[in-house]
Amino acid sequence: MKFHVSVFVGVVHFLSLTSGKAVYGNGISQRTFQEIKEEIACYGDVAKAIINLAVYGKAQNRSYERLALLVDTVGPRLSGSKSLEKAIQIMHQNLQEDGLENVHLEPVKIPHWERGEESAVMLEPRIHKMAVLGLGSSIGTPPEGVTAEVLVVTSFDELQRRAPEARGKIVVYNQPYTNYSRAVQYRVQGAVEAAKVGALASLIRSVASFSIYSPHTGIQEYQDGVPKIPTACITVEDAEMMSRMASRGSRIVIQLKMGAKNYPDADSFNTVAEIVGSKYPEQVVLVSGHLDSWDVGQGAMDDGGGAFISWEALSLIKDLGLRPKRTLRLVLWTAEEQGGIGALQYYQLHKANISNYSLVMESDLGTFLPSGLQFTGSDKARAIVEEVMCLLEPINVTQVFRAGEGTDINFWIQAGVPGASLLDDLYKYFSFHHSHGDTMTVMDPKQMNVAAAVWAVVSFVIADMEEMLPRS
Amino acid sequence: MKFHVSVFVGVVHFLSLTSGKAVYGNGISQRTFQEIKEEIACYGDVAKAIINLAVYGKAQNRSYERLALLVDTVGPRLSGSKSLEKAIQIMHQNLQEDGLENVHLEPVKIPHWERGEESAVMLEPRIHKMAVLGLGSSIGTPPEGVTAEVLVVTSFDELQRRAPEARGKIVVYNQPYTNYSRAVQYRVQGAVEAAKVGALASLIRSVASFSIYSPHTGIQEYQDGVPKIPTACITVEDAEMMSRMASRGSRIVIQLKMGAKNYPDADSFNTVAEIVGSKYPEQVVLVSGHLDSWDVGQGAMDDGGGAFISWEALSLIKDLGLRPKRTLRLVLWTAEEQGGIGALQYYQLHKANISNYSLVMESDLGTFLPSGLQFTGSDKARAIVEEVMCLLEPINVTQVFRAGEGTDINFWIQAGVPGASLLDDLYKYFSFHHSHGDTMTVMDPKQMNVAAAVWAVVSFVIADMEEMLPRS
Ligand SMILES: [Zn+2]
Ligand SMILES: [Zn+2]
Repeated sequence: MKFHVSVFVGVVHFLSLTSGKAVYGNGISQRTFQEIKEEIACYGDVAKAIINLAVYGKAQNRSYERLALLVDTVGPRLSGSKSLEKAIQIMHQNLQEDGLENVHLEPVKIPHWERGEESAVMLEPRIHKMAVLGLGSSIGTPPEGVTAEVLVVTSFDELQRRAPEARGKIVVYNQPYTNYSRAVQYRVQGAVEAAKVGALASLIRSVASFSIYSPHTGIQEYQDGVPKIPTACITVEDAEMMSRMASRGSRIVIQLKMGAKNYPDADSFNTVAEIVGSKYPEQVVLVSGHLDSWDVGQGAMDDGGGAFISWEALSLIKDLGLRPKRTLRLVLWTAEEQGGIGALQYYQLHKANISNYSLVMESDLGTFLPSGLQFTGSDKARAIVEEVMCLLEPINVTQVFRAGEGTDINFWIQAGVPGASLLDDLYKYFSFHHSHGDTMTVMDPKQMNVAAAVWAVVSFVIADMEEMLPRS
Repeated sequence: MKFHVSVFVGVVHFLSLTSGKAVYGNGISQRTFQEIKEEIACYGDVAKAIINLAVYGKAQNRSYERLALLVDTVGPRLSGSKSLEKAIQIMHQNLQEDGLENVHLEPVKIPHWERGEESAVMLEPRIHKMAVLGLGSSIGTPPEGVTAEVLVVTSFDELQRRAPEARGKIVVYNQPYTNYSRAVQYRVQGAVEAAKVGALASLIRSVASFSIYSPHTGIQEYQDGVPKIPTACITVEDAEMMSRMASRGSRIVIQLKMGAKNYPDADSFNTVAEIVGSKYPEQVVLVSGHLDSWDVGQGAMDDGGGAFISWEALSLIKDLGLRPKRTLRLVLWTAEEQGGIGALQYYQLHKANISNYSLVMESDLGTFLPSGLQFTGSDKARAIVEEVMCLLEPINVTQVFRAGEGTDINFWIQAGVPGASLLDDLYKYFSFHHSHGDTMTVMDPKQMNVAAAVWAVVSFVIADMEEMLPRS
């Protein structure tokens, strides 16, 4: 390794004190937009070379094949699990063998939760074994389970109105799926709200755009001062059925058993590799995805795809013998699914260098055929990113949308760093998200080729332009 | 009951002997097609009344609500199960309470198979609990299971080529899904072909157009003289993963446990109800769906929907005070999934009356928004059906396709009776078919309204026209 991270942070910190945030971060540029446009247009040949290599050349299907090998070998990679540990070791070796620079691991303490054995059986009005997945961080039930009558509600408002009915019951949330960010509140806070009104457990309709009787897990959060009750997700199908039964006046009784346990924090790592910048090595364009996943399926889509097109972006640039002026840094986050634990640690460790971050990128919404780039940043920065995206005209992915995001890059975006994320078919994404169905079968090598090309062109050009992206 | 079925058969048999097949069955009609067209055009107001009642009037959503109540109450209805028995009793009562005529049950002996406890665990190259569903009629494994190395093949041809490798192994079929009828051969004959080359068990990639890690069960068939081996379906995802592993040279070992058992045949019934014809009561238009299902999900789509739009067709006609010249007969088949057992029995009991069957109809491919009617029959009959379908112009379902079909009506079709089936979105249908995902969540009340209107208009008009549909 040429630069160990702790040394590197020191250097960067020094630079940001002497050169000042203004030069790199505030976009006080003497150049006209016309000059910048012309600069970007000069990358047409580079963009074509990247596209040719990724989509039509010898690198095609590489990110898919690499991903398949990893996830077939280690399976899903839950925070705190042996398989996540193994995946990090394999990736550390993979990145070294790929010839990337500064390949290293940055230690992080991460949550360790295991679901154990689980079951949910409807006892009344008829016997029915239900598919169930405990929610991350949930406590378990006693060994004999929790057996109680069910109260079905479709919203937190309804739960409040019917609070007197909830005591001693299992609350079933059958909230509609309008969009992910709205529906996911029930998964995250459903147990706390149910516990506040005296429920013994809560079951949440899976947050999914489409279902074939598939439960979709995810993190939930307890709250200080509110009793912890066991909580799990059930299928859309069973939530709807119980809603119909309740509306007919049927008494519903469920026996819920969960062997879930929280263990002491485990040791883990963010996995880092670079192509060091030729002119401004202290300046960074960060490309990333997270390596951890839920403990079902293969974590191929969430977020194997994002992690592997991020690696692929650096591989493509390296294979073409390109070296941008700024450092391209790949980060494979750990414990994103537990609330961006690895990313928070990274932010705290590296934020002193914030003025040197030109752009933070994360792909964590699928690597299907991209519809474009989501971007958060100043209008001037957006105009530049729009020009860069024009370079992707040959593969017809040129759109720039609002609201670049990603659990792992949001720390930086909120602190004013421009951020970009890959957007594609969210209906498809949330059909498989956090379910047993998140496997390589969902992934398409040709679509990953295109996603990797977008990722490589954007990260390379932004890293190589004369100036950093201007901030607000 | 006004006409008991055995009496009815006698009468009909007599008529077919005296009047001869020619009059009713062979379409030797003196009328021109223009006259027939004019006759059909006169049903415009009746068709509109049916459509108004079913789609916009007080009957809207009725078939959906009736179906939801049944399948929420009894759940799935496997051949030989208590829940199928209960469903038949409930339907018998429902049809009587609905005021239909000749409501009765026709006894049938049906297969009784139970899956018991099942599991499939990949032991090598890594531990992975797989979703599995034993196939109908499969034997079980010994209690300790069958543990063996896997041979993955993608076709029967490949199995033949690699026959020496199969002995003592578990054969995994990863056949592509080109269409249902091609892929389903692997489910039906996979065990026999694997046993012929010495395999201990066979696992079949689920026959499905789309998967979220969902196994899709179904019937399989042993062959005399070939050893019976346990057989189950696995998910598309696991079949594809094992294919990838095998192509990398990995050794795959699976432990399969199946508690499946075949029991002596059980007592069951086809459920029958009628609106008796006013002028030719011995002549029949048969509308049908099957009441049994697999033992997963709710059997809401396959074939609750078909059974309930068939009932709804008679309800709509009755509610409008209509009585066709011929008898409209509703049959809810039993044990279709075991190979049309109820329908075969019905055919044998009633085939003497075949010349009096104007049209046999079955809906068993979903009751989503219909794309049209599949029809098998003479060109003259097709021309008439096409005219009838023009009456459905107000709801834009006018297309007539080739190849009317249905396990339960094929006996009649093969014997020359015109046959019709409802066609809709088969990709959607085979996403849920025979899986835990076949629930009311798949069903759409508005789409069922339209399907029921199509079913009612076609069956009523064909039953009420002056002449039977001409045969070849
Ligand atoms: Zn993710
Ligand atoms: Zn069926």
